[in-house]
Amino acid sequence: MRITAGDIIAIGPGKISLLEAIDETGSLTAGAKTLDMSYRRAWLLLDELNGSLKRPAVTSAKGGPEGGGSELTDVGRQLIELYRRIESTAVEACAEDLKQMLHLLAR
Amino acid sequence: MRITAGDIIAIGPGKISLLEAIDETGSLTAGAKTLDMSYRRAWLLLDELNGSLKRPAVTSAKGGPEGGGSELTDVGRQLIELYRRIESTAVEACAEDLKQMLHLLAR
Repeated sequence: MRITAGDIIAIGPGKISLLEAIDETGSLTAGAKTLDMSYRRAWLLLDELNGSLKRPAVTSAKGGPEGGGSELTDVGRQLIELYRRIESTAVEACAEDLKQMLHLLAR
Repeated sequence: MRITAGDIIAIGPGKISLLEAIDETGSLTAGAKTLDMSYRRAWLLLDELNGSLKRPAVTSAKGGPEGGGSELTDVGRQLIELYRRIESTAVEACAEDLKQMLHLLAR
């Protein structure tokens, strides 16, 4: 599930998984690694996410990515919670139609 | 909203809008044009979509893209209907959480 507002803002599985990985590992570098994501891609995703929010989802301690570690803000935690709840509510509400759609797919 | 099954199959707004545009215009070329999409991108999207389905969503008459025109199959129509219904059901079921998520976004 990917939430878009206009063409610009998108909250999707990549950004949410990244937030969860940062939360688990305490750093952007380590979080990216658990997702098999390059540091560069993770940094860009997070930069885009923070730029689309009123307040950032992650703060980094001084010392840079290697030195300081990263921590989720309240906004970051709220985003994860909302996204995961929206995902499960939507899947539940649409179960029958999703099943029919899966029947059309060759797998 | 984008529906993924594993990493490979994705039904999202681009493919569904393309099906709708082909249905309205009767051809891939004209459909792509109404979406400001290159013919090449439209062809690739449709090829990927057809490849992910048990039966194709669109059939093209002989004569190629310029000559023959394209038509939706029953599967194509079903996909549009299911996708649009899933979308509206999900938005309705998640209205409150989506509203809260939008509040976090800078717009």
